[in-house]
Amino acid sequence: MEGIEIVVPLDVPREERERFLDNSRALTGGKGRVMLFAGDQKVEHLNDDFHGEGIAPDDGDPEHLFRIASRGRIGAFATQLGLIARYAMDYPDVPYVVKLNSKTNLVKLNQAEPLSRQWVAVDQVARLRDANNIRVLGVGYTVYLGSEHEAIMLGEAAQIVHRAHGFGLPVILWMYPRGRAVADERDPHTIAGAAGVAACLGSDFAKVNYPSGPDAQERFREAIRAAGRTGVICSGGGRMEVSPFLERLHEQIAAGALGSATGRNIHQRPLDQAVRFCNAVYAVTVEGASVQDAMERYWEGPGT
Amino acid sequence: MEGIEIVVPLDVPREERERFLDNSRALTGGKGRVMLFAGDQKVEHLNDDFHGEGIAPDDGDPEHLFRIASRGRIGAFATQLGLIARYAMDYPDVPYVVKLNSKTNLVKLNQAEPLSRQWVAVDQVARLRDANNIRVLGVGYTVYLGSEHEAIMLGEAAQIVHRAHGFGLPVILWMYPRGRAVADERDPHTIAGAAGVAACLGSDFAKVNYPSGPDAQERFREAIRAAGRTGVICSGGGRMEVSPFLERLHEQIAAGALGSATGRNIHQRPLDQAVRFCNAVYAVTVEGASVQDAMERYWEGPGT
Amino acid sequence: MEGIEIVVPLDVPREERERFLDNSRALTGGKGRVMLFAGDQKVEHLNDDFHGEGIAPDDGDPEHLFRIASRGRIGAFATQLGLIARYAMDYPDVPYVVKLNSKTNLVKLNQAEPLSRQWVAVDQVARLRDANNIRVLGVGYTVYLGSEHEAIMLGEAAQIVHRAHGFGLPVILWMYPRGRAVADERDPHTIAGAAGVAACLGSDFAKVNYPSGPDAQERFREAIRAAGRTGVICSGGGRMEVSPFLERLHEQIAAGALGSATGRNIHQRPLDQAVRFCNAVYAVTVEGASVQDAMERYWEGPGT
Amino acid sequence: MEGIEIVVPLDVPREERERFLDNSRALTGGKGRVMLFAGDQKVEHLNDDFHGEGIAPDDGDPEHLFRIASRGRIGAFATQLGLIARYAMDYPDVPYVVKLNSKTNLVKLNQAEPLSRQWVAVDQVARLRDANNIRVLGVGYTVYLGSEHEAIMLGEAAQIVHRAHGFGLPVILWMYPRGRAVADERDPHTIAGAAGVAACLGSDFAKVNYPSGPDAQERFREAIRAAGRTGVICSGGGRMEVSPFLERLHEQIAAGALGSATGRNIHQRPLDQAVRFCNAVYAVTVEGASVQDAMERYWEGPGT
Amino acid sequence: MEGIEIVVPLDVPREERERFLDNSRALTGGKGRVMLFAGDQKVEHLNDDFHGEGIAPDDGDPEHLFRIASRGRIGAFATQLGLIARYAMDYPDVPYVVKLNSKTNLVKLNQAEPLSRQWVAVDQVARLRDANNIRVLGVGYTVYLGSEHEAIMLGEAAQIVHRAHGFGLPVILWMYPRGRAVADERDPHTIAGAAGVAACLGSDFAKVNYPSGPDAQERFREAIRAAGRTGVICSGGGRMEVSPFLERLHEQIAAGALGSATGRNIHQRPLDQAVRFCNAVYAVTVEGASVQDAMERYWEGPGT
Repeated sequence: MEGIEIVVPLDVPREERERFLDNSRALTGGKGRVMLFAGDQKVEHLNDDFHGEGIAPDDGDPEHLFRIASRGRIGAFATQLGLIARYAMDYPDVPYVVKLNSKTNLVKLNQAEPLSRQWVAVDQVARLRDANNIRVLGVGYTVYLGSEHEAIMLGEAAQIVHRAHGFGLPVILWMYPRGRAVADERDPHTIAGAAGVAACLGSDFAKVNYPSGPDAQERFREAIRAAGRTGVICSGGGRMEVSPFLERLHEQIAAGALGSATGRNIHQRPLDQAVRFCNAVYAVTVEGASVQDAMERYWEGPGT
Repeated sequence: MEGIEIVVPLDVPREERERFLDNSRALTGGKGRVMLFAGDQKVEHLNDDFHGEGIAPDDGDPEHLFRIASRGRIGAFATQLGLIARYAMDYPDVPYVVKLNSKTNLVKLNQAEPLSRQWVAVDQVARLRDANNIRVLGVGYTVYLGSEHEAIMLGEAAQIVHRAHGFGLPVILWMYPRGRAVADERDPHTIAGAAGVAACLGSDFAKVNYPSGPDAQERFREAIRAAGRTGVICSGGGRMEVSPFLERLHEQIAAGALGSATGRNIHQRPLDQAVRFCNAVYAVTVEGASVQDAMERYWEGPGT
Repeated sequence: MEGIEIVVPLDVPREERERFLDNSRALTGGKGRVMLFAGDQKVEHLNDDFHGEGIAPDDGDPEHLFRIASRGRIGAFATQLGLIARYAMDYPDVPYVVKLNSKTNLVKLNQAEPLSRQWVAVDQVARLRDANNIRVLGVGYTVYLGSEHEAIMLGEAAQIVHRAHGFGLPVILWMYPRGRAVADERDPHTIAGAAGVAACLGSDFAKVNYPSGPDAQERFREAIRAAGRTGVICSGGGRMEVSPFLERLHEQIAAGALGSATGRNIHQRPLDQAVRFCNAVYAVTVEGASVQDAMERYWEGPGT
Repeated sequence: MEGIEIVVPLDVPREERERFLDNSRALTGGKGRVMLFAGDQKVEHLNDDFHGEGIAPDDGDPEHLFRIASRGRIGAFATQLGLIARYAMDYPDVPYVVKLNSKTNLVKLNQAEPLSRQWVAVDQVARLRDANNIRVLGVGYTVYLGSEHEAIMLGEAAQIVHRAHGFGLPVILWMYPRGRAVADERDPHTIAGAAGVAACLGSDFAKVNYPSGPDAQERFREAIRAAGRTGVICSGGGRMEVSPFLERLHEQIAAGALGSATGRNIHQRPLDQAVRFCNAVYAVTVEGASVQDAMERYWEGPGT
Repeated sequence: MEGIEIVVPLDVPREERERFLDNSRALTGGKGRVMLFAGDQKVEHLNDDFHGEGIAPDDGDPEHLFRIASRGRIGAFATQLGLIARYAMDYPDVPYVVKLNSKTNLVKLNQAEPLSRQWVAVDQVARLRDANNIRVLGVGYTVYLGSEHEAIMLGEAAQIVHRAHGFGLPVILWMYPRGRAVADERDPHTIAGAAGVAACLGSDFAKVNYPSGPDAQERFREAIRAAGRTGVICSGGGRMEVSPFLERLHEQIAAGALGSATGRNIHQRPLDQAVRFCNAVYAVTVEGASVQDAMERYWEGPGT
């Protein structure tokens, strides 16, 4: 599998082109596909994903995420700036994607339309990066399409893309159709629409849910095409067993996904297992490994 | 058919007059009428216009739009800045109108009043243009008159016109009466009102829906008069056959429309057909061709 | 009838006093009373006032307004900046009041509370004036008192007065009690209250509706007293015959009104008639002519 | 009765301390207690307080307020900046408190929660003061505690205090519990709470309603204690006879109130009477006069 | 019990590191645990906590809080800037945490969703500190998670943390799940979630409610783990007797709490008792004293 040529968008200024390319290559292992270790759930799901039955006790402490990120093979670890600011000095090699907005899961969809607003500005992220020499490879932001507050999030997303590119930072948009107006969040056609919106916002990657159903792979191709030069990343979703997870992932990559975002399936495991799982996910996502190869790496353990 | 003298509005500063005139002439082929290839539907209609029955497979990929725009004769291709930033380096000759706001079609009118807010600032567009030497000829913005959020969009539109003119950029406002208060979006008198509002906002062009009904042409003249020195552009609307489409277009131009905006009727066709259709639309819109002449061009094909 | 001494408010800086005085004198013909040709209805009433039964065909084109304003005697022509920016180069002698906000009439009072927000900033108006040497004599803004959005408009109005004075520009506030909370928009006591609010906002003039009823004149004096040093201008309202219109106007001026604002009653007539009507209105408003004298001027025609 | 030492709050910068002290002394006659002539009702109550049965005809003209303020003894005349800007040149000796927000009384509490927003910025007031050498001794602002919009007003109030102190200007906050959540606006415990909030906002004075009921004085002391170093000022409320008014005022001062704010009870009288009433109120409020002494001054007339 | 190493977050600029460390050490007595004397209730609870049955009369005057803070042993006294600005000149040794937002308790949860907005900016606090040499050791802010207005408060909190760190100021976030969506504000799992959100916001400390129920201590550990390097502080809650209060506090500290926040239990007592209670709380919180030792200190009295 070849490296994919990176198109530097025109809102990256000349003097930031090299940095943008470096960040993009680092994010995608030089192969064009990003393996995102998603760790923004401490806000999005409160402590539900970190404590309880079937969750390794390790996961109760946020440092677990940094330990995994520093030992496993990942494209980047996506989390909030506040957490990075308090741990990154001890994990100098971890590559980060700063998630710029988050909301809790307390207010349900039947109570109010979803709204998640920007917490920190892109230039604040860039200054933190420059002052501390930490590896911030990009920024992320969630857009709830179909929410009555959609206009707020579309506006913030457009500005984030524009400004992030100004600092040489690629952007990943979490594109989630959600709200009273959205009958089925996993409808492939709606997902394709969401991927297309990310492209119009100028995002480098669009993180979407993988469709459900028997012809998921086929139907998912609509989204990949709709996104054009914006890479589509599949959300990992809820907890699954290793083998079916990797099989689904392989199917997504085979369909043309330019990455995967895995959270709970990694961090809910004990450290060693989590690291090995990371590596397996990385192998399939970035290196184009078969499921069998990836399973072997999972069982072999982290190595070195 | 003669070239029409361009009135440079007073909010164009002296040092930008030449650029404004150049942009206006380029936009209108020196004839005063703009043939707009409208391509903002990837947000406005999600993937509905790009995938499905009766839509050419080519259209699933956003690059299809750029391919058409670079091979067909157009006044400008209107789309979001994010998409332009990711493709324009490969399509250096395409003239663009940057659509500054967009909303999805998920929230229906019976759920909430329409609101579409600005994504990027005019000066960000101008800087992108200047840094990359791309052919941005103008900017566009949608106003939903009659929405309870009308005040927000009127305010943004007024500022966009003022600032765009400050950078030598003509403006096209999509003027759509929409919301609970609007009984009939295609009522000619309401459309005329919308065109008049665009004039009061200082817009160079107002894109409106063409009225329905037998005496459409006659009734449409109300809008053209109401707009005064602001040119009225007719929306292309849903998919039609080539010949009736061109006939309606000819009727609109004959009524005094200063342009047409065509989206789905162009891009839902395979590339070659789409390009030929573009050329036919251009012939009628800009060059004042008869329907028969335009049909001939359509059948002849693009040529060089 | 004597010239009335102009009180320059303290928020006019020393270096702008002369300009403020010049503008005030020009606006009021040196007599202290302003004859405002109100032409913001293309937004406020869409095309209802410009097309239809009983409206001269001339009125369908916005240039009709400029033609009247340039040939008739007026204190100033009040309209939106966008329209001025596109016509004023051809009408260099017309004095303007820039109307800074406007809303359409689509959303009715039983649907939502009225809200009209500022379109352009005072400094943008001042720069346009200075760059083009056009005769902007003042700015205008509508406040819907009693709307649930009142706080927004009171705040914008206060800032507009303060800033307009900073550029030597007098201000006319359209003071309209409107909304669910307002039982009777033409209640003289409420109108007096509205006039008093304009005074507290520091406005130079308050445009209000003239009360209805037999003792209108007497009751109107409450408003004139409440406004103090802020001049009260009467809205012209809907279409009337020439003679009763001028009689009512004379009654208003006799009651102490410091001006009149006439829109539809002027521009719905053919150009020549409209110009003569302007002159009649000017005669009564500014020059203190009797109704008979004014009627004579109306029949004599514009002359030079 | 002794002069009370003024505590200069720490947000008054060193270079503004003398001015703050001068303003405070002038405001309180060097005695620590402020006699506020409250004249913001032209917005708050529209023309209800200025025209009608039992109201002197003088009061219909806003200049009546300035005439009283210039002839009577007052701590300061509180009104909106717009009015000051139009009259203060003729009343150079009047001390002012600029009321920075106001709302009308049209929207009732059963329709919508009360909201009053800032009209002019503190630095605009300070510049007006400095450019014209007028005696602005402080600024005022109303907070409706218990309104659903409370957060907006608390934020504006906190910023106003901070910035006013930065320009050497003391602040008076009108602290009114109001809204659906407030069962009894004159509940002494709630009033005490409101006084305490003013203290936490850093205000110099808190204007509150005096409790009703037989043990009002005793219960009012809770508010005075709760306010700490922030002085409590009693609102004058609706029209009363001279003698009971002064008796209640004396009771308030005896309870520890650091001032009174009287509006309607002053300005609804004819000029001479109003001035004498002012002086009587001043005597009780600032000079600690007995009711009998004050009544004598009222009957004696203004004198010099 | 050892001093705990302080992790300086990466958003503290190099030149503010020493100050941040000094502030952190002062705040925690060099032991890593903060004893917060919480005094923001004059807004949060109006005068309910300061006047009434079972409350010492001393408490009616806000200066009582400063007297306690200056004589008792505390980590910091948390209150609004306005109060500090008016008393701190007389209490130069008191260490402060400036509470940046507050709301009243008038609007109940069944009426509207809770919203508390920022009153003063961090840089205003820092300037006040620097100009007056007062001991501001940090800032505080309340976030109501689960409120429909959550997005506003999350955004303000994130900015406050980022900016406070920029001025060398540690941050304490009051993390309260509250609103229609929150079934049980004291559910340990939800509290743990709230503590985790504070960590993601980058806060130094998270003030939460201590869970109720028999296995509170055990369940509370979930929150402490979830907060990671962000210290968890327990709210003191309603009035209790000395001994059970200290026992519960000891249990909290033993569970790993990095501090306590006590308000009513301190200031509702007469000064001497309040000071002794402070010292007992300090002993348990910061010095790791046993309940018995702390009780002894309480009975012994403050001493010098």
